[in-house]
Amino acid sequence: MKTMIDRLQEALFGSGSDVEADGALITSAPNCRYLSGFPATSRMVFVTRDAAYFLTDFRYGEAARKKVQGCTVVEYQDSRQTLRELVRRHDCKRILFEYDNLRYSEAERYRKFCDHLSVTPVFDKTLDSVLQSLRAIKQPQEIASLKAAQAITDASFQHILPYLKPGVTERELALEIEFFMKKQGAEDIAFDLIVVSGENGSQCHGVPGDKPVHPGDFITMDIGAVIDGYHSDMTRTVALGYVTEAQKQVYDTVLQAQQAAVEAVRPDVPCRQIDWVARSIINEHYSGAFGHATGHSVGIEIHEWPTFSPSCETLTQPGMVITVEPGIYLEGQFGVRIEDMVLVMENGHENLTGSPKELIIL
Amino acid sequence: MKTMIDRLQEALFGSGSDVEADGALITSAPNCRYLSGFPATSRMVFVTRDAAYFLTDFRYGEAARKKVQGCTVVEYQDSRQTLRELVRRHDCKRILFEYDNLRYSEAERYRKFCDHLSVTPVFDKTLDSVLQSLRAIKQPQEIASLKAAQAITDASFQHILPYLKPGVTERELALEIEFFMKKQGAEDIAFDLIVVSGENGSQCHGVPGDKPVHPGDFITMDIGAVIDGYHSDMTRTVALGYVTEAQKQVYDTVLQAQQAAVEAVRPDVPCRQIDWVARSIINEHYSGAFGHATGHSVGIEIHEWPTFSPSCETLTQPGMVITVEPGIYLEGQFGVRIEDMVLVMENGHENLTGSPKELIIL
Repeated sequence: MKTMIDRLQEALFGSGSDVEADGALITSAPNCRYLSGFPATSRMVFVTRDAAYFLTDFRYGEAARKKVQGCTVVEYQDSRQTLRELVRRHDCKRILFEYDNLRYSEAERYRKFCDHLSVTPVFDKTLDSVLQSLRAIKQPQEIASLKAAQAITDASFQHILPYLKPGVTERELALEIEFFMKKQGAEDIAFDLIVVSGENGSQCHGVPGDKPVHPGDFITMDIGAVIDGYHSDMTRTVALGYVTEAQKQVYDTVLQAQQAAVEAVRPDVPCRQIDWVARSIINEHYSGAFGHATGHSVGIEIHEWPTFSPSCETLTQPGMVITVEPGIYLEGQFGVRIEDMVLVMENGHENLTGSPKELIIL
Repeated sequence: MKTMIDRLQEALFGSGSDVEADGALITSAPNCRYLSGFPATSRMVFVTRDAAYFLTDFRYGEAARKKVQGCTVVEYQDSRQTLRELVRRHDCKRILFEYDNLRYSEAERYRKFCDHLSVTPVFDKTLDSVLQSLRAIKQPQEIASLKAAQAITDASFQHILPYLKPGVTERELALEIEFFMKKQGAEDIAFDLIVVSGENGSQCHGVPGDKPVHPGDFITMDIGAVIDGYHSDMTRTVALGYVTEAQKQVYDTVLQAQQAAVEAVRPDVPCRQIDWVARSIINEHYSGAFGHATGHSVGIEIHEWPTFSPSCETLTQPGMVITVEPGIYLEGQFGVRIEDMVLVMENGHENLTGSPKELIIL
């Protein structure tokens, strides 16, 4: 099976590539973890046409040798010295660096480092773009991790339902979900969990506060866990006690929009078209109440490329995992959002989310 | 009372300053929070000789207007457009940027932005150094937040002691401490909590695993909470059931080294001298078993400048808050570390940590 490193080498140095470089240095946490499968606070991945190295310090050496995939692990005392030897060994003349995830101070140090070695450093979007494209297409082991993360998220949704009683606060609910996920083995929560209720539900990125939930409240829970570095992302909105006719209409509209957009997911569709499927249904009666994009890709980071946004022209491809999360937000009243994670398949899609979407009134 | 912005303006533009600039743009999360007292994922602080602005988007506008200190809050639709207007309004000609916390891609965009306005951008360590020096001297409200964070940490230590029973795992203990801190109102944990036991205790940065604790184990807990953005940091090592004579000697040596170093904390001492107080005591019988620095400053970030390390020549000053955390790590056997947070005072120091340090055998 091809490693992530094999894929990167093919994309950078393969016969179909027009990239002019004979080396690439990757230093950011998400890209290093993506390429090596191994998390470490001190790490670099150095890739040439025919070799790949994972550089780390003594603290991670032993664990790295056991777990790093596709790279020779090199334990350094002085990272620059070790890197210098590798650059010379492979006679590199032109090395790509990251762009968005590189610190300015680091770039300056690498510029001097390259000057000393008569190497040309490339500080532009080339490497970022290649990695972004690779990361967009999930491999089987990545999909397995995403499914495992989503399984914990589905379990946490079932776990929290009995806690939804009048008087419990948003913050207490968010903490209970977090504790459950971590006790179930999640490496972390995927983002600051959102639990908002009643009027707060109209804030799409609200922070769980000390507001208790009341009968008649919608409670929106946007939650996710991390397994093996991979993030899940799901939103469910449930009601406490009862709902008004207006609430029910909003819920039904969001559900209809969400289901229609999920059904529309298949290969070779411009991402903006999936956004439009959801948006047009909401706009019919709730124009202006859906202020964000319909979805984003998910993987080693919670927000990845491409997105189901009105301006994203990218075509869907098998292997992409993208959220579908339309919502309606009525300021001063309430909000509803429903979100699944969907895998684009050759013949359509697979919904990775297992939790029910029919309105639950507790 | 002077705001953080007042202090920054004085340091950059005051009569005693040799900084050549008439503006500074701060974009990193810790520095923006430090200066404004307000956390936001979209934010910039723009400071000139006689004005300061906190720029954010519609999501944070209302909260920012209530909570931001020392800056005029400006809600932007297009951040560059708003910044352009402010640069022109104050007729800035030379603007400082951050260095270590600036992304390379951002620097490139600001470079172009400045070119358009005929402004000289300064991408070097000037602004970082000024902010680092300001942040090293904690103000009364910062000390109050550090004490509040430490109070939760002390309470969590008392809370966890009854859980220390044979069979409970390191990970379960770490999670219980985390849950307790968050339920007590901590905004977050200060870092990935460390709970290591028995042989694992020799890894100074070990990750809590599924190892159960056994009688005869030392259990080292390096824990901290965040309140109002400020971090606490404390380590205690306790024993389960019994200790051997060898364990007791190690514990006593670490305790002696730690207490001596704490007692040595006062103003106008080179930081390396405090390190040496602890290190020389340990080296007497356990040479080579203390591989890290004696301490680091703590504040809006968990690791700040200056540090009690063998090479740090910086003189202590009243208002610095620095950890004192010597340890002895015997590979394949066990480890002990004891850590307090200490505030440098005009007349000596105040230990901000309230938990007992005498060996507890549970």
